[in-house]
Amino acid sequence: MALIVQKFGGTSVADMERIASAARLVESEVAQGNKVAVVVSAMAGETNKLVKYISAISPTSDMKEHDTVVSAGEQVTAGLMALELQKVGLKARSWLGWQVPLRTDDSYGKARIKGIGPGTFARSISDGQVAVLAGFQGLSSGNRITTLGRGGSDTTAVALAAALGADRCDIFTDVDGVYTSDPRIVAKARKISKITYEEMLEMASLGAKVLQTRSVELAMKYRVKLQVRSSFTDVEGTLVVDENEILEHELVSGIAHSRDESKITLIRVADRPGIAASIFGPLTEANINVDMIVQNVSEDGAATDLTFTVNRSDYEHTLNVLRNNKDNLGFERIASDPGVTKISVVGVGMRSHSGVAQKMFNALAERGINIQVISTSEIKVSVLISEEYTELALRALHSAYDLDEN
Amino acid sequence: MALIVQKFGGTSVADMERIASAARLVESEVAQGNKVAVVVSAMAGETNKLVKYISAISPTSDMKEHDTVVSAGEQVTAGLMALELQKVGLKARSWLGWQVPLRTDDSYGKARIKGIGPGTFARSISDGQVAVLAGFQGLSSGNRITTLGRGGSDTTAVALAAALGADRCDIFTDVDGVYTSDPRIVAKARKISKITYEEMLEMASLGAKVLQTRSVELAMKYRVKLQVRSSFTDVEGTLVVDENEILEHELVSGIAHSRDESKITLIRVADRPGIAASIFGPLTEANINVDMIVQNVSEDGAATDLTFTVNRSDYEHTLNVLRNNKDNLGFERIASDPGVTKISVVGVGMRSHSGVAQKMFNALAERGINIQVISTSEIKVSVLISEEYTELALRALHSAYDLDEN
Repeated sequence: MALIVQKFGGTSVADMERIASAARLVESEVAQGNKVAVVVSAMAGETNKLVKYISAISPTSDMKEHDTVVSAGEQVTAGLMALELQKVGLKARSWLGWQVPLRTDDSYGKARIKGIGPGTFARSISDGQVAVLAGFQGLSSGNRITTLGRGGSDTTAVALAAALGADRCDIFTDVDGVYTSDPRIVAKARKISKITYEEMLEMASLGAKVLQTRSVELAMKYRVKLQVRSSFTDVEGTLVVDENEILEHELVSGIAHSRDESKITLIRVADRPGIAASIFGPLTEANINVDMIVQNVSEDGAATDLTFTVNRSDYEHTLNVLRNNKDNLGFERIASDPGVTKISVVGVGMRSHSGVAQKMFNALAERGINIQVISTSEIKVSVLISEEYTELALRALHSAYDLDEN
Repeated sequence: MALIVQKFGGTSVADMERIASAARLVESEVAQGNKVAVVVSAMAGETNKLVKYISAISPTSDMKEHDTVVSAGEQVTAGLMALELQKVGLKARSWLGWQVPLRTDDSYGKARIKGIGPGTFARSISDGQVAVLAGFQGLSSGNRITTLGRGGSDTTAVALAAALGADRCDIFTDVDGVYTSDPRIVAKARKISKITYEEMLEMASLGAKVLQTRSVELAMKYRVKLQVRSSFTDVEGTLVVDENEILEHELVSGIAHSRDESKITLIRVADRPGIAASIFGPLTEANINVDMIVQNVSEDGAATDLTFTVNRSDYEHTLNVLRNNKDNLGFERIASDPGVTKISVVGVGMRSHSGVAQKMFNALAERGINIQVISTSEIKVSVLISEEYTELALRALHSAYDLDEN
């Protein structure tokens, strides 16, 4: 007997028919003698509708109220799923974040989970009741509803699996696994059967929108065995596991990309100690995540150019913060491009092989694609290119690393 | 400085524009130096949508899950209203039933309020923050969401006004007050400027769908001064007050009607002590509300006919319960009519005047309308007639009691 967490995303609970299909997947786990906890997202489109209501009132709204409003979608699905499970004869009940309670910090809109109350919740599962937990939501210290940020239901599922010591956490979504690249762009992309947490983390954070980054981090931290699979087809999904569970590693596992990037260059920043801190301090305070950072060695020792990227949604905000701090920072001017793409080659295999980056640079150079910024980590090489080359670059790299399906 | 509770119904918060209009009504109370607590319904149509989801799964569903699902609509509106109030510069926050907490009994789907937690909630109002409470919902002893039944937001508002000792409770809706009869049927119906709790209670329970019956009962019990008014027009509404606050009483205040009636007659029931109890016991157990009851004196002393009415939605259920108990009850057969109308003449003035009923019987007789059942109370006379005569009867009675607008 195993304990399984099953998470159903918005498209998997989009209407009554799909909720019924999802319930059958739960039923089949229970029929195998397993205990099951279910995490549900809002019905597809619901959260967007609620966000639109909020934006119509005020774009910069009180996040406490924001979270109260947008968490309603998961509440509805949780109740409906519990009813559907009861209909097929299972013992089931819904749980809202505040009922468990799933405690978070007080960062409304992007709260982090602090703990999952054991008590009656865990007991009900071990008593054989299917627990249907509303994803995405938690409870703040001030007794108010928090939400975990977009895709937060993945995080709920993984945190729950960790807290319960679950044997596996299945993430049901509308794709049947993680692919070597975006199949809508790269026709020859293949499904990956097993991928390491580290790789998945890079793939997730780099734009393969299958799993939320934080959920993968959490899975890695607590060694939760994740499976990404489709709720529509009965094919094997992708297992996200520990590195030692994969015998043969490909050199490169996948090519990820993200179009949500924008590039900002501060021209002729004073080249003195502490300048980076004084630039990025105000951005951190404004809650802006800076991704790639490149600083050139200055020629004259007095001033240099500093380039970095931020999410496109933070672009205008970032420019405003910089302009407001111009006197303090002492740059000459700002050059910026709201539309660039980050392309990344990811694979744990590159730890033990050299030449991976070189192959990338060559492949791009052959197609005449200019690399604007380079950033590397142990298991990935990322480059920033002009957005218009996105598809060309992805396909070229997919072939270059022999990832194409035969 | 007064403390005012303002309740906005579903049509008054149907979209962002109307929520903004409602917020201006709150703003204007605050501008007059008053403390305000707001109670909101779900956006018009939302609760029906959620109920439809539930019915698609199972018509006889676990009411705990039912309540979890259907309470989501009010949660959304509460958050949106708080945001709108903040936008116009007021201090405001939303409160959900479980946050206050608004404690109820455990009758999911039609819970009764047991108490409103004072603590931080009441303090926030006296500190000048506008409290926006999600209507219709409460918290059970089992830490789950309950709902108060249809129209429950009225009850939330009145209970809140009672608990806070509010000076007035304004019920904003899509009509501008309580009318002497349904203006859609009786063109000459007039708006009543003041009505007593007792009269309103009869009008409400008899089908003038302006206020939920339980909210009026509660207002009467705690002497909450109610005002029914429109959120769309700035005209005076109807005040529901104590009898001694009305100097001149009309003989008859209004003519109410309800089409939601169905009539059941048990033919040749044994005429023995305890027979009524044995008939209505099973119906009470089945949660069916019986309204009018008429039992004729039996001619032969052995068997009699017994007629009663139930809500049309309980009609089939009632017949089933009776048939299942046929052996026990020993009636010969059942005669029934799912579609009858109850028409009632209401007015505290009839306490001190005779002839009110007679005038009603005459007016109906003149139009050839057959009276099937009669029932009276201190301040009302109700008759059951065939549904097709509804409009004719209402207009005839409205004229007969001189209620027509000049």
